[in-house]
Amino acid sequence: MRYHNFAEVPLYKAFEFIEPGPVILLVTSEDGKPNIMTLSWSVLIDFDPIIGCVLSPGDYSYEILRKTKECVLAIPAADIIEKAVQIGNCSGEDTDKFQKFALSPLKASHVKAPLIKECLVNIECIVTDIIDKYGLFVMEGVKAWIDKDKSEKRTFHANGDGTFVIDGEIKNLKHLMTKWQQFT
Amino acid sequence: MRYHNFAEVPLYKAFEFIEPGPVILLVTSEDGKPNIMTLSWSVLIDFDPIIGCVLSPGDYSYEILRKTKECVLAIPAADIIEKAVQIGNCSGEDTDKFQKFALSPLKASHVKAPLIKECLVNIECIVTDIIDKYGLFVMEGVKAWIDKDKSEKRTFHANGDGTFVIDGEIKNLKHLMTKWQQFT
Repeated sequence: MRYHNFAEVPLYKAFEFIEPGPVILLVTSEDGKPNIMTLSWSVLIDFDPIIGCVLSPGDYSYEILRKTKECVLAIPAADIIEKAVQIGNCSGEDTDKFQKFALSPLKASHVKAPLIKECLVNIECIVTDIIDKYGLFVMEGVKAWIDKDKSEKRTFHANGDGTFVIDGEIKNLKHLMTKWQQFT
Repeated sequence: MRYHNFAEVPLYKAFEFIEPGPVILLVTSEDGKPNIMTLSWSVLIDFDPIIGCVLSPGDYSYEILRKTKECVLAIPAADIIEKAVQIGNCSGEDTDKFQKFALSPLKASHVKAPLIKECLVNIECIVTDIIDKYGLFVMEGVKAWIDKDKSEKRTFHANGDGTFVIDGEIKNLKHLMTKWQQFT
């Protein structure tokens, strides 16, 4: 492994990082040049995990993802919230975002797009389908990593108006999950 | 209006309640019988709002939503987190969930499914498309309501393991939204 703090997350558990709906950094690579976009429009489609991400043709990453059919979904914690927002406010067309935001690309196992060392979780994904009319990229997670030594574990969510909400209190309601006990 | 605390949310602002990825109560109605399911697999597909919800054929609401093509997406705040989880752990097949969980159905404006009085936000939706292979229901919000007098405004997110995270600190980063200033 390329970074000693990264531990593998079993794939059947990886959906747990997408389900809460955090802001995600979507990393692509084209001709060896990595790029990052900030994404809030994501959804679980199935366990495994199968993840849907909605991009716009106006996003610089859109055509790259269409062409390369692979990416990394990197989940930032609250320690880099400003960087994540700024990444979403410039374009890979004229910006090397890893350099500009002092982020470290790490070689992934299954895809050419790099992991982001500074993120809490990184999920390597293969695009399996594209629903063109909605810009919906269906992707399968093929490898997932967590930074097990990271002290900041709170993720954050976009409110859509330039404000963001950071994870607060965690409520354990496993005892109420009578129908879904196998997931607890 | 049926409930004096409910104020209309302009439709162009309604996406802001879906974007953070909260747990949602999806309300349907079949032959005058309302039902509720708990849903965490949702996504914004476009502003307006166009919202995608992934259901499983195993969900009792799946066929009803396919048939009636309308629903209410009700967003609970943290004051009813236990109820929301319990609603997701029983079936409308043999349970009147409004009665069992002491929730109050309110007549909606555009759809037969009722609003839930105890929720922070209610979005009336029309299903415009169904992507069968993924159980993805594409719906358009046609009317949205907020309980303007509700003191508990924190929503919550499913971690997928029987724990839930309640909204914490709100971070205002509007000054960094240089590219998306029109949304701030």
